Amino acid sequence: MEFTVGQIAEVLHGTVEGRGDQQINRLAKIEEAQAGSLSFLANPKYEPHLYSTGATAVIVSRTLELRQPVAAALIRVDDPYTSFTALLEFYQQATRTGKRGVEEPAYMAASSRIGDNHYRGAFSYIGENCEIGADVVIFPHVVIGDRVKIGDGTILYPGAKIYAETVIGRHCVVHAGAVIGSDGFGFAPQPDGSYRTIPQIGNVVLQDNVSIGANATIDCATMGATTIREGAKIDNLVQIAHNVDIGRHTVVAAQTGISGSTKIGDFCVIAGQAGLAGHLTLANRTTVTAQSGVGKSIKEEGVFLQGSPAFGLRDSLRANALFRHLPDLERRLRLLEQKAQPPEKP
Amino acid sequence: MEFTVGQIAEVLHGTVEGRGDQQINRLAKIEEAQAGSLSFLANPKYEPHLYSTGATAVIVSRTLELRQPVAAALIRVDDPYTSFTALLEFYQQATRTGKRGVEEPAYMAASSRIGDNHYRGAFSYIGENCEIGADVVIFPHVVIGDRVKIGDGTILYPGAKIYAETVIGRHCVVHAGAVIGSDGFGFAPQPDGSYRTIPQIGNVVLQDNVSIGANATIDCATMGATTIREGAKIDNLVQIAHNVDIGRHTVVAAQTGISGSTKIGDFCVIAGQAGLAGHLTLANRTTVTAQSGVGKSIKEEGVFLQGSPAFGLRDSLRANALFRHLPDLERRLRLLEQKAQPPEKP
Amino acid sequence: MEFTVGQIAEVLHGTVEGRGDQQINRLAKIEEAQAGSLSFLANPKYEPHLYSTGATAVIVSRTLELRQPVAAALIRVDDPYTSFTALLEFYQQATRTGKRGVEEPAYMAASSRIGDNHYRGAFSYIGENCEIGADVVIFPHVVIGDRVKIGDGTILYPGAKIYAETVIGRHCVVHAGAVIGSDGFGFAPQPDGSYRTIPQIGNVVLQDNVSIGANATIDCATMGATTIREGAKIDNLVQIAHNVDIGRHTVVAAQTGISGSTKIGDFCVIAGQAGLAGHLTLANRTTVTAQSGVGKSIKEEGVFLQGSPAFGLRDSLRANALFRHLPDLERRLRLLEQKAQPPEKP
Repeated sequence: MEFTVGQIAEVLHGTVEGRGDQQINRLAKIEEAQAGSLSFLANPKYEPHLYSTGATAVIVSRTLELRQPVAAALIRVDDPYTSFTALLEFYQQATRTGKRGVEEPAYMAASSRIGDNHYRGAFSYIGENCEIGADVVIFPHVVIGDRVKIGDGTILYPGAKIYAETVIGRHCVVHAGAVIGSDGFGFAPQPDGSYRTIPQIGNVVLQDNVSIGANATIDCATMGATTIREGAKIDNLVQIAHNVDIGRHTVVAAQTGISGSTKIGDFCVIAGQAGLAGHLTLANRTTVTAQSGVGKSIKEEGVFLQGSPAFGLRDSLRANALFRHLPDLERRLRLLEQKAQPPEKP
Repeated sequence: MEFTVGQIAEVLHGTVEGRGDQQINRLAKIEEAQAGSLSFLANPKYEPHLYSTGATAVIVSRTLELRQPVAAALIRVDDPYTSFTALLEFYQQATRTGKRGVEEPAYMAASSRIGDNHYRGAFSYIGENCEIGADVVIFPHVVIGDRVKIGDGTILYPGAKIYAETVIGRHCVVHAGAVIGSDGFGFAPQPDGSYRTIPQIGNVVLQDNVSIGANATIDCATMGATTIREGAKIDNLVQIAHNVDIGRHTVVAAQTGISGSTKIGDFCVIAGQAGLAGHLTLANRTTVTAQSGVGKSIKEEGVFLQGSPAFGLRDSLRANALFRHLPDLERRLRLLEQKAQPPEKP
Repeated sequence: MEFTVGQIAEVLHGTVEGRGDQQINRLAKIEEAQAGSLSFLANPKYEPHLYSTGATAVIVSRTLELRQPVAAALIRVDDPYTSFTALLEFYQQATRTGKRGVEEPAYMAASSRIGDNHYRGAFSYIGENCEIGADVVIFPHVVIGDRVKIGDGTILYPGAKIYAETVIGRHCVVHAGAVIGSDGFGFAPQPDGSYRTIPQIGNVVLQDNVSIGANATIDCATMGATTIREGAKIDNLVQIAHNVDIGRHTVVAAQTGISGSTKIGDFCVIAGQAGLAGHLTLANRTTVTAQSGVGKSIKEEGVFLQGSPAFGLRDSLRANALFRHLPDLERRLRLLEQKAQPPEKP
């Protein structure tokens, strides 16, 4: 992909200052940009970089007043951040998610249906009786089990594995290697100490605009559904157990694990490597910091939790501040003990 | 799949109370069931739900005496839990694990052998000189390396990756994306600070009735075998390093990591996100709580460990209870110090 | 594979003591070896095993003086460890990484180029405009996106997924199921509490001799590159977020997570299940112990960190030693309080 500065300015309804015939072949941050790059300046804090950037062109505000000469060409627009984001989205679509058509060999059972304007990469697999919407992008090596439903505009990256019966909404993104609908970890202990597998016959439901990270795993419900609600964002290598319910627009960062039947409210933020025990309920807008271990339900909205086991963030910070000074506390205690109990006379 | 209440009663040798001609198309918990669902009542605690359930039919004990009228049809059997579990297993088999035959294109080297009554999904791959049993279910996109042995009745879910030389027993389950036999993390430091890779030529052995979770990783031994013994259950995203030995009927929950050459006994329970250092030995029936970090061997059977670093559960609970009150302890200490050393007079 | 003791001695320029016509079909540790095995003795500590080993043959030093009779045949060489390692490497190459040729069906876009002497397994996928070197081993089910560059001698294990634009150096190893180049977890909060996805248009660069573990995930940069520098070794199930920079010959053990834009120096060691916050800088030769949570940058070289939150290893060990005795500290404090404030008289 290569465009001239002038072509990009035209698309953005901007005006060019400097040479409009130069070639642009990538987008870059203003402080890292090199020749051939287009960058942008939105935050005034970054203005000094404008005078030293290696970018071939920079998108700036129509109202920006220059304090020094600029080597890069300028594209002046009303809102540089919005214009640049539009370019980012265009670029990503052009290079990655805009694929259409079918690459052979691809497998789709005759009983399944898929909407118009889709991409099915080579070696992608669609089982029996699936209903898949329009504008769906199915990268190579995606596996879709029987009776799966997928809404319009959803993107499944390479090697995403969707077990039978899963329901996925519109405009979802499932990244490479993610597994949706694996069996919950349910085993009934037997008298001899061995375990009998409890059949897991529920499914997973992803509502609209859900994002699932690479190699994340989401188990199906024992019965009923494991549910990820509208707009929730799940990061890489997250584990979500059977019958969990994740609220709307809740964010779960990488490597966090959520145990069976736990229900997380809307607008929550669960940081990385946190762990939640099973059968808990977390109120809306709960925040859990990284590496915390949550063992109790939270009924009040807006609580911050930290620690393993987790408690209120403020108390946790104070306790941790003292933890590292434990040897000092112990020394002070010893001094007091010596004062209280003078050494016996010889 | 749709059956009438009467057909299901017949299979279960039960008797129908109410309309036997109604259609059943799914199984559900009694408190969540809607029209079309079949549920069950085994635990007396749930009896109140019987009188309000939306289920079309409920499996109950022959001896149950009704206290109120029931809208659902009843199927009376000797043991409702066992009957319902049988239906769950039948359902899972019918919808998921009962597949048979070969979907093309599937790849199997001419030198490999596989038993009768198997399923090989499209794009599944079987390398050279493999010996695979009967009734094996190989979902699409499974990769089986050279010289792998797999016992009868084992199920490999989509995208499971089995490295060369792996040995898998009978009636094992490997979930989607699990990797069995990747190289151990073995690197010899060189004088210049770089690392030389130590070739890993051992393998992984899964004995009978082992279950491996989605996207779990089990490294091969440097030499010899990494061994998961009979009936052990390994959850999603667990990491098991080279030369580890997991005992019979031991359970390892999600996201736990076990370092190289550690040996875990039989009937142990390792909860989620725990970490075990290398070269340890844990006695039979050891329990490790979630997020614990175990750095020492345990010789006595039946020990409970908690914390990072982990020690006995009881001591850990008491220490944690005080940890959150550290600011209070410090305040008490300060008061005593003030009493012991009155402020100097001006 | 089967060789005689004599054949192996010839390859190693060694001399045989005992029967050279016996068959060898595997390599094993001296303390575990059984009939048919070849083992080695380098560390004098293991010499007692020489007199009891079940190995058919053992590689020993030319200068070793026997103290007892040995049942195994001996192959005497100058340096037993180096000779044995050479055999290990030969064995791994012969059984695993020495594959060449193309298994059909394999997919490679007509616009892509690959060097001589390569292996492309069945169902492997190579997108548009890729440039792939010579002697590259691409196992079945590898997915390589568009415009990817891969250097000579690199090995991609089954189901490794390389997103578009990734750059991989020479002699790298990417293990099964690893995902290189998935989208960074970047979402801009909106006024209504929902999130808008920030397009991630950067890539991942792996320099030469990098190793990536099974099911690890490495996100692409928002813009620019997520970089893993020369000789770095990344273990299974590690999460590396967008724009992270991992230094030369740095080792990151299993299940560790590194948040966005963090820069780790050269020759660092990050143990398992550790977590690093975003936008940190760690100096060269920093060591982070297992399960630690690092929240601050480290400017000084050679620091050891432990704990969550992490601080200096020595202080951490002392604080942890007292942590488990908190109940005892509290008891001592209570005694002092009682002494300082005698019970009121009735």
